[in-house]
Amino acid sequence: MSFKVAVRSFKTLSYVGSYKKIRDRPLKFYFAAFLGSGYAWYSQHKQNKAEMKEIIQLKNYMAEPITPIAHLEKTQDDMKTQMELLIMRIQAEFCRALEKEEDEESKFKVDRWTRNEGGGGITCVLQDGRVFEKAGVNISVVSGTLPPAAIQQMKSRGKNLENKELPFFAAGVSAVIHPRNPMVPTIHFNYRYFEVTDKNGVQWWFGGGTDLTPYYLNEDDAMHFHLTLKHACDAHDHSYYSKFKKWCDDYFTITHRGERRGVGGIFFDDMDYPDQQNAFKFVTSCAEAVIPSYLPLVKKHKDDAYGYYERQWQLLRRGRYVEFNLIYDRGTKFGLHTPEARYESILMSLPLNAKWEYMNVPKPNSPEEKLMKVLKEPRDWLHLEETTSQPKRAAA
Amino acid sequence: MSFKVAVRSFKTLSYVGSYKKIRDRPLKFYFAAFLGSGYAWYSQHKQNKAEMKEIIQLKNYMAEPITPIAHLEKTQDDMKTQMELLIMRIQAEFCRALEKEEDEESKFKVDRWTRNEGGGGITCVLQDGRVFEKAGVNISVVSGTLPPAAIQQMKSRGKNLENKELPFFAAGVSAVIHPRNPMVPTIHFNYRYFEVTDKNGVQWWFGGGTDLTPYYLNEDDAMHFHLTLKHACDAHDHSYYSKFKKWCDDYFTITHRGERRGVGGIFFDDMDYPDQQNAFKFVTSCAEAVIPSYLPLVKKHKDDAYGYYERQWQLLRRGRYVEFNLIYDRGTKFGLHTPEARYESILMSLPLNAKWEYMNVPKPNSPEEKLMKVLKEPRDWLHLEETTSQPKRAAA
Repeated sequence: MSFKVAVRSFKTLSYVGSYKKIRDRPLKFYFAAFLGSGYAWYSQHKQNKAEMKEIIQLKNYMAEPITPIAHLEKTQDDMKTQMELLIMRIQAEFCRALEKEEDEESKFKVDRWTRNEGGGGITCVLQDGRVFEKAGVNISVVSGTLPPAAIQQMKSRGKNLENKELPFFAAGVSAVIHPRNPMVPTIHFNYRYFEVTDKNGVQWWFGGGTDLTPYYLNEDDAMHFHLTLKHACDAHDHSYYSKFKKWCDDYFTITHRGERRGVGGIFFDDMDYPDQQNAFKFVTSCAEAVIPSYLPLVKKHKDDAYGYYERQWQLLRRGRYVEFNLIYDRGTKFGLHTPEARYESILMSLPLNAKWEYMNVPKPNSPEEKLMKVLKEPRDWLHLEETTSQPKRAAA
Repeated sequence: MSFKVAVRSFKTLSYVGSYKKIRDRPLKFYFAAFLGSGYAWYSQHKQNKAEMKEIIQLKNYMAEPITPIAHLEKTQDDMKTQMELLIMRIQAEFCRALEKEEDEESKFKVDRWTRNEGGGGITCVLQDGRVFEKAGVNISVVSGTLPPAAIQQMKSRGKNLENKELPFFAAGVSAVIHPRNPMVPTIHFNYRYFEVTDKNGVQWWFGGGTDLTPYYLNEDDAMHFHLTLKHACDAHDHSYYSKFKKWCDDYFTITHRGERRGVGGIFFDDMDYPDQQNAFKFVTSCAEAVIPSYLPLVKKHKDDAYGYYERQWQLLRRGRYVEFNLIYDRGTKFGLHTPEARYESILMSLPLNAKWEYMNVPKPNSPEEKLMKVLKEPRDWLHLEETTSQPKRAAA
């Protein structure tokens, strides 16, 4: 048996993880095997690298990363890279998890796009499926210079930045899932990382949140959802859940109607504490909590019975979702007013169908009225406090 | 024949406009008739007054006026009163004209509402008719004090006003008609009168416009529509139509998509020229042009054949209508951000149904693409100029 053959056979054996067949060989064979094992390790390492490249390019992610792979490999400790890899993984895991609930032929359509100024995104949309009427999962990794108007907006939020054009970097994942069955709630989540450079150096922060919009209130679902988010928060700081739950209730308010968009979740912004790695770990936990918080609700209700009336109510509530997104949502407004905005990716959050009826008021003691009550007065789902936050103004 | 009988018979005769039967009477009869005619005039005047009251209260208008009738009668020369009576008449005439196109059982639902701070409105909505999917015709007559933020907005438009809380009055009529048949365009119009009082006295101005949003482009319809508006303008000033047509194209732009909402019409604001009575007469002409500009299109197309595909396209374009109204329309934004806003009246402009598909692009040379072309580059419908205004930015 030549050395080459030995090496080849060792490689083959090592692949299947079985060493039994070489147990009875003479000493010179072990020497050859030792050399072979070194070669095998080298070969494996090379293969791993190639595979990793392949994975990044095609396999586990929805599309090739926005940042060139060579640059990602060289900057593995940079938060920009860590965040890009996180959002790509979250996007892929979430899309695959949703596809598993769908009929075989319903798959996400993947659009990878780039911006002239720098960066781009990967937009994944599944439309008109049996389970999901419209599901959009988007990542974007963009850089360039922020105009003074945008800087001013950040300063008004408390950021201490020079008031001139500044280089920035932003990476985030954002998803809105509108299921077909009115008994399955809509979910939205968004996790993002921001860097702005001024004369004092780089300022960075994270923001994000996950919130649920049911059409019919199921208290068990709301509790499961909030509990999953609380676990994700508690692993990092026991004060986070309550604080970010209230922030979420305040943010997702349809002010002119004096009602919330849904039953809330968590929402936070300007997170530059306790330090970059720990903030990133918190954001990772939150993003990883999306699937366990939501998928059980899809599985549980996707085949629930419903009729024309429930569908009409769902469409009316989707009209309210459109109102919030187009009138109040900071992300949508900021996005659409940005030059070169990819409006199709920004507006992928809008439902496939929505409805507006003049003066629709749910019947007393109906399931629709039960939902409205909780939208007008958010509940403390985990019974953590006696009092909960109030809507900004009472409805007319 | 007694005097009383003569008077009674003269009254009767004068009502039918026939004097033939009294041609052969003796002289004393003519004396009695002369007295009788004076009484008849007085009686008629009294009856007119009573009838006018009745009309104002119930008959020709959709509801009782917002301003007390006694006050309207006392202030007939005040522009506030003239405007209120105009918008009530326009509302009623338009609602009745639309109802005539509908099935017998489809009538406008009338809601008269009042504001705590002063004034109110009459909202008329016809929903889910055979011809009209959703038709809203609203008037409002409101007064109170304008907060400095609103004053600031007017100053930025060129108004010279003190920068503090100021008393104001506003009266306007506003309508959006969404027909069911995709071959019938949507129409919107709004005519309003504004007064603000500061230390220099009362500043007043008119604003308004009428614009058409077809789902399928019919060039004859667009020309008829624009020609009717041009006639209304030309009766007052030959420069108005071209100026206000361009203003309309610029205003009704869905900026993020680089497209217009529809084929335009006319739009103007801050009209305090040439003088109050002539500005009012112009606004009256425009408002009276709504029915002849639009109703022929309804009659012509309301029974046109269409299928699932045309309906889907109509719903997608209605989504764009929602985008314009909620993101860009000044009236909607101003209204929804006003405390105590009656959001149901403001949002009655939204269609009953709307749709958002990711990346919907019409097929080349399709009727849908033909519409898109004219939305991206507005046309000079009456061939008045060689060049027309351009969209603010090219679409992506």
